[in-house]
Amino acid sequence: MSELRHDPLTDRWVVISTERASRPSEAAATKEKKKSEFCPFCPGNEDKTPIPEIYMVLKDGSHRSNTMDINIIKNSEWLVRVIPNKYPALQPETILKRKGVGVYDKISGAGAHEIFIESREHDIKIHTLPLQQVVTVLNVIKLRMSDLEKDPRFRYLSLFKNEGEDAGASLEHGHFQLTALPITPSEVARELNCCRDYFNNKERCLICDILSQEVECGERIVEANEAFMVLAPFASRFAGELFVAPSPEAHHHNFPDIDDKMIEALASVIQRTLARLSKKYDNPPYNITLHTAPFFRRKKKGNGETIQEDYHWHFHIMPRIGKIAGFELGNDCFINIFSPEEVAKLLREAAV
Amino acid sequence: MSELRHDPLTDRWVVISTERASRPSEAAATKEKKKSEFCPFCPGNEDKTPIPEIYMVLKDGSHRSNTMDINIIKNSEWLVRVIPNKYPALQPETILKRKGVGVYDKISGAGAHEIFIESREHDIKIHTLPLQQVVTVLNVIKLRMSDLEKDPRFRYLSLFKNEGEDAGASLEHGHFQLTALPITPSEVARELNCCRDYFNNKERCLICDILSQEVECGERIVEANEAFMVLAPFASRFAGELFVAPSPEAHHHNFPDIDDKMIEALASVIQRTLARLSKKYDNPPYNITLHTAPFFRRKKKGNGETIQEDYHWHFHIMPRIGKIAGFELGNDCFINIFSPEEVAKLLREAAV
Repeated sequence: MSELRHDPLTDRWVVISTERASRPSEAAATKEKKKSEFCPFCPGNEDKTPIPEIYMVLKDGSHRSNTMDINIIKNSEWLVRVIPNKYPALQPETILKRKGVGVYDKISGAGAHEIFIESREHDIKIHTLPLQQVVTVLNVIKLRMSDLEKDPRFRYLSLFKNEGEDAGASLEHGHFQLTALPITPSEVARELNCCRDYFNNKERCLICDILSQEVECGERIVEANEAFMVLAPFASRFAGELFVAPSPEAHHHNFPDIDDKMIEALASVIQRTLARLSKKYDNPPYNITLHTAPFFRRKKKGNGETIQEDYHWHFHIMPRIGKIAGFELGNDCFINIFSPEEVAKLLREAAV
Repeated sequence: MSELRHDPLTDRWVVISTERASRPSEAAATKEKKKSEFCPFCPGNEDKTPIPEIYMVLKDGSHRSNTMDINIIKNSEWLVRVIPNKYPALQPETILKRKGVGVYDKISGAGAHEIFIESREHDIKIHTLPLQQVVTVLNVIKLRMSDLEKDPRFRYLSLFKNEGEDAGASLEHGHFQLTALPITPSEVARELNCCRDYFNNKERCLICDILSQEVECGERIVEANEAFMVLAPFASRFAGELFVAPSPEAHHHNFPDIDDKMIEALASVIQRTLARLSKKYDNPPYNITLHTAPFFRRKKKGNGETIQEDYHWHFHIMPRIGKIAGFELGNDCFINIFSPEEVAKLLREAAV
């Protein structure tokens, strides 16, 4: 069973998940892992993925939830599938238990780890899918997040995508992953703290202010409209890094509240952005992550007011062009060999 | 020229160092980089590394500093060389300038980036060098750190080592790297904050308390004596991660203050630890990083007292067995597939 452990030296949580690997002494063998021809996410191989199938959108627009019968799953003309991760970092069946051990803290690994198969086609990438298919994927993500946030054991939902082997993708067939965590992860906590301090001081959203300053400057903007903005962050950690957020006019703290119009605009802006990146940087491996408000931040305050002005959901797109080495890991300070201004200029020029 | 930039959303500094790469649009080509047969760190190729050579230890035990004459360098029977990095992340010639730009902050990239060539032999690893050679390397590191800390532009010295291509090493020939930074990097700041809060509350060193708790528990100890302790951290981020620190009896905050006896003990414990790791995990790629007190922490307080009880220098050894993917980067929360208890057990059993 997985366990979350807290490091008192850095105030960071780690997931110890030994089920995801063979025993330590045998791990070296995984270095030799060969690319398998077989893809469990391709149509026809539905019996190779875990049941119950959490959610399925069918070609006729209908959907199914929690399907246990593998024959029904196999014979479905599906468009998008949501399945449990076969090697989950966290398991939903677990009772949540928080415990202190001297200077340490730990939590039994209650959580969820779901996979969103984006398409029936093995080789297709997000930016080459039909727009409507991306809209469907985002709608299913919204639906699953809205469902998981009802579970009182969880504090945060982490959505991410690994594209390409160097970005940590173990399967080629396009998929997003969603994890439900009983903690607010360190990176989100950092952002929340910075945003809260800024808001307490100025009564303005830090991210809205960043976006407004970027519009005035213009140098790092890839595209901007009344719904979304895409920019190469001033202090980009990764070569070619991008930040996608609702424009200040569309400020919102909680991704699952997104409406149909914004989902369509988001699908479109993500497709354009990934198309630019793929075109100008030769299909780089990349990670995408969503940052949105954790649940406890969405609870009403004593006076009935909700906390929402001070956080602003967004996606980080992190191409993995260089290696993460000792300087980066030892200092949590990245050396970026690309100028964000040049990245933005290059991507603006890409016809999409 | 490099630039340090501050991200207001995460309170993190990034080094933008475009000299370290070709132009963004040409970067894809670097993916094809072939392993070169030529090694600029091997004897005979001294003219392929930048001058001035910062420091050199010769076979007769003597040394030379700031040598400009390439013929002298080439004809030296050297044991250890310290040279400027050919592609420095930060340049010492730069005037330090701190500037705010709206919500952002930046610093011109004044710093230093030095390379320590550990041996004349191309293929030899730290743990197979003669003990005395490792002692010499550590003494030269101490010497360079003591010299660089006199430069009032700098706040922190970051020592690290990348071993193996997957750990970001661009050259095979064994070397450490030392950077001088005008900021305290985020990872060190986190540790300092946690240690300071703990000390303010309890008047005990957090790291001493961690080490003492680990001795009592025993499960995660690889080895321990009155000088040093090696353990698999409770909340290890990396599979096979290790923590090497002076034992509580030898508590100290500032690495360059290390004495001869402790240097010899450190050389020996690092060799044993890397030998264990290489043996049990099949020579994994790894990063090593040193965490020590930044300069401002070593200044005297108003009452003449120095701050030193609340920090404790140490090395992190991070094997790079798995990939860093979207979950890790998006959350700054790592999934570790090895149990630290099993790692410690396995490494304790390794005969070295």
